[in-house]
Amino acid sequence: MSRRDVSFLFDLDGTLVDSVYQHVLAWQQALHAAGIELSVWRIHRRIGMSGGLFTEMLLREVSVPITPDLLETLQRQHAEAYARLVPWVRPLPGATELLAYLTEAKLPWAIATSGRMISAQHNLRALGIDPATATVVTRDDVAHAKPDPDLFIAAAERLGSDIHSAVIVGDSIWDMLAARRAHGLGVGLLSGGYGQDELERGGAIRVYEDPADMLRHIDEVGGRA
Amino acid sequence: MSRRDVSFLFDLDGTLVDSVYQHVLAWQQALHAAGIELSVWRIHRRIGMSGGLFTEMLLREVSVPITPDLLETLQRQHAEAYARLVPWVRPLPGATELLAYLTEAKLPWAIATSGRMISAQHNLRALGIDPATATVVTRDDVAHAKPDPDLFIAAAERLGSDIHSAVIVGDSIWDMLAARRAHGLGVGLLSGGYGQDELERGGAIRVYEDPADMLRHIDEVGGRA
Repeated sequence: MSRRDVSFLFDLDGTLVDSVYQHVLAWQQALHAAGIELSVWRIHRRIGMSGGLFTEMLLREVSVPITPDLLETLQRQHAEAYARLVPWVRPLPGATELLAYLTEAKLPWAIATSGRMISAQHNLRALGIDPATATVVTRDDVAHAKPDPDLFIAAAERLGSDIHSAVIVGDSIWDMLAARRAHGLGVGLLSGGYGQDELERGGAIRVYEDPADMLRHIDEVGGRA
Repeated sequence: MSRRDVSFLFDLDGTLVDSVYQHVLAWQQALHAAGIELSVWRIHRRIGMSGGLFTEMLLREVSVPITPDLLETLQRQHAEAYARLVPWVRPLPGATELLAYLTEAKLPWAIATSGRMISAQHNLRALGIDPATATVVTRDDVAHAKPDPDLFIAAAERLGSDIHSAVIVGDSIWDMLAARRAHGLGVGLLSGGYGQDELERGGAIRVYEDPADMLRHIDEVGGRA
């Protein structure tokens, strides 16, 4: 492949925006409101999956019967708790600079998030991204979210890029699994709070600290201008 | 050594009590109040150290001049933010059962925390531990907290146990480093949200999920009744 085939597909929460820990505590509060007590680190380790899969896996850990009503209540309670914590959410260091660099270098990029547009909007705004002009694929656009590969495949298609030469950047093992299943190249960031080996064992070809660190090493993953 | 020499020294936050994520967000809010923005995962990776060392290391990452006034303000703001989040703090699964098992088996145990008694009190209460009868060593009792070995050495001395045969249980790499420096045997728990390899590379001889998982495997680390 020529370098012009390279594209960059980004996860959003924990990858470009520093929002994972707020999501974690919001889920704890939502579960508690439903009478379910679960250790916070177990919630953290599930974050980044599709919301439906996420709640199903959590509820299986505590052996609670999974009903559509309960799932709907949890999603709503989470959204309410997250709204209270969202004032603390910031872009990650280097996120806007990394995207600006790729734009400048004419390297196509897109965002592919397991969240819905309604919750992604705030994060995109914080990053200075206009969903009307940037390529953004959300949970609303695909049948299955991460760790299924659909989101990244849809993002590459929208860019008109070959998924096989896409660099797929994420902070969670669900991003890395989805990258492998999409046959793209996973790159992990530590900024979601997972360990380096978790990402490497999930299939990351490189792991950086955060977007700023990735920008410093962008030549390693096909990003030279 | 005979098995009767074995003692168990426990960290508190993230090891017996599910409080790490609340501490992380409380530090983010305290730093923000002081005009300092720092990624949340970087705060997480420093949690569990002595409060003084912790703030000094964080401030060095953002190149902010470290003054006694600033340190005092941060500690106070953190305590206030944590007090707002503390209603969400719970004992970790199996914590009370593990301590009850050790008491029943006549295996000496103690708690050694980098926090001060004023903040540890709430957690001890949640665990049903009376500091008047249990052996609890806090930051108030030693010159240097973790990753220095003083807390664990003081805890073993209070128990009249040999530190060389002490099983030192913690969730952070600072616990594992302090265990190595104390010449005890570090056992890691994933319940603080760190990765297994981080704990193993810090020197853990075994890593369990949480206190409940450790109790299921207690024979592996000298805990047979």
